[in-house]
Order: sequence, then structure tokens, then C-alpha cells
Amino acid sequence: MQMRLKPIGVVQNEFVEAVPKGWETALHRLVLDAQWAPALEGIEGFSHLYVLFWLHGIHGEIKLHVHPEDRQDLPEVGIFATRTPRRPNPIGLEVVELVSREGSVLTVRGLDALNGSPVLDVKPYLPRGDAVPGARTPEWLRKLWE
Amino acid sequence: MQMRLKPIGVVQNEFVEAVPKGWETALHRLVLDAQWAPALEGIEGFSHLYVLFWLHGIHGEIKLHVHPEDRQDLPEVGIFATRTPRRPNPIGLEVVELVSREGSVLTVRGLDALNGSPVLDVKPYLPRGDAVPGARTPEWLRKLWE
Repeated sequence: MQMRLKPIGVVQNEFVEAVPKGWETALHRLVLDAQWAPALEGIEGFSHLYVLFWLHGIHGEIKLHVHPEDRQDLPEVGIFATRTPRRPNPIGLEVVELVSREGSVLTVRGLDALNGSPVLDVKPYLPRGDAVPGARTPEWLRKLWE
Repeated sequence: MQMRLKPIGVVQNEFVEAVPKGWETALHRLVLDAQWAPALEGIEGFSHLYVLFWLHGIHGEIKLHVHPEDRQDLPEVGIFATRTPRRPNPIGLEVVELVSREGSVLTVRGLDALNGSPVLDVKPYLPRGDAVPGARTPEWLRKLWE
């Protein structure tokens, strides 16, 4: 089975290389191809969205284990137990706040993507199902978030 | 830029065609290729995961608008305002509960995928960021959930 993706648009922001801080509050533009403007109709009814994008800045070999966020004081875990961008299929996933839409351009807050990242999909965030506030996480994550 | 995906495994369940009910409570097996067993180490620390999979049962033309879940009494909206599987890039996304892991096989609950769907990625669910219980949704969605 061939599984090929086509970009539906591109991320525009100020981030040209990975930086550890500032993504959460910055504004980002998802500039979709003009043909998709009708496909966004009604999206303003949602305050939050999922954005799927291609991690185009990622190259090289995929390891099986990593220290979360390169923190050597945290235990090595399997890559699928982390959100590392170095994954077999480099698809980035973020919950973002939808700030506004103009035609085929969405302005969002809370995206951890580099400028120029191809946008693959935009999905509405449905709190029934998507919001699991009590989800359990491992001890090392609490250390990371301190 | 070439964006090609490779399956990391396959969904095994009882659903051979789309059905409206029963996905939420059924158990599903994500049978990853054996090489990925080490990459799953530590994932048991999370109660919930994101699963990204290829919507391999979807063929034909992509419309720009749909009635949500084919409900003619609901307004037509753009496809990106819905979770319809008929999308430019047919990537399915679900939050699932991780029930158990044995080697490279995950048993999960809450997956809306057909048997045989290629698995693309598994990511840990991080409530800080991923859980937005107060996210706003449009009026038609409340009607759908009644």
C-alpha cells in the first residue's frame, strides 16, 4: 500500500530552528492552499484544533530510546513513550487554540512547529473523547514539568 | 518534498466495515512490527495514548463540505470542521486507553479504526497541553451528542 501525503498548506511563524521556549504563547499562521477555504467553513465554532504537520526539519537515523527532551537526568525510554520528533513517521501533532480565520488562513496559538512545516491536516478538538484531564503519566514527566 | 509513510504495525479488531456504535468500548490490538518493541519501553507509564493510523478503507473523491456523520438535519460544514475520514490526507487520530503491552503489541480501548488499518504512530497523551476540558464546540455538535 502506498501511503503518500500531500501538503494542504504551510506553517508561517518566527521559528527557523528548534528552540526550547516560547512556542506556547506565540502566534502562528497556517496558510492553507486557497482551494481549502470552503473546507474550513464552520471551524470557527471550535476554540481548539488538532494540527498535524510534517516534521521537515528532522533528518538522520531513528533511535529506539531517548532521554526525554535530552535531559540526561531522566531515564531513557522508548521513543513511542515520548513526543520526540525523531519518529519512524515524522508527523507532528499539537492541540492549538484557534484565534481567527481569514479565508484559507488560520491564526493559532500553541504550535510547536518550525517555520515552513508542511501542514497535513486540521481536525476539530472534541472535548468529549479528546479531553482526559485525569490521564496518568509517569514519574519522570512530573520531573520534566517542574 | 516527498512525504511517504511506512506502517509501523497494524490494527487488529472485529471491525471489518464502518459501524456507528461499539468502537468506544471494544478492545483493539495494535500489533507493531517486532523491531519496535524496545521503542515502546516505558509507555506503560501512560494511561492514554494517541494513535495515528491510515484510513485505508477510504477511497474516492474528497468533498469540501459534509453533513456531520451524514445527519441531514445538521448543517453542512467544511470537512476540516469535522472528523470525517474523507480528508486530503487520510490520517485517523484517536485518544485511546492503554490496557496492556506485551512486547510490540498494545491492547487499547476506544479506537475508531477498521481491522487491518496501518498504524503510523503512537504518542503518549500529556494532559498538560492535550486536555482542554472547556474547549468550545459549535451548537450542531451538541445536537449530535444528544
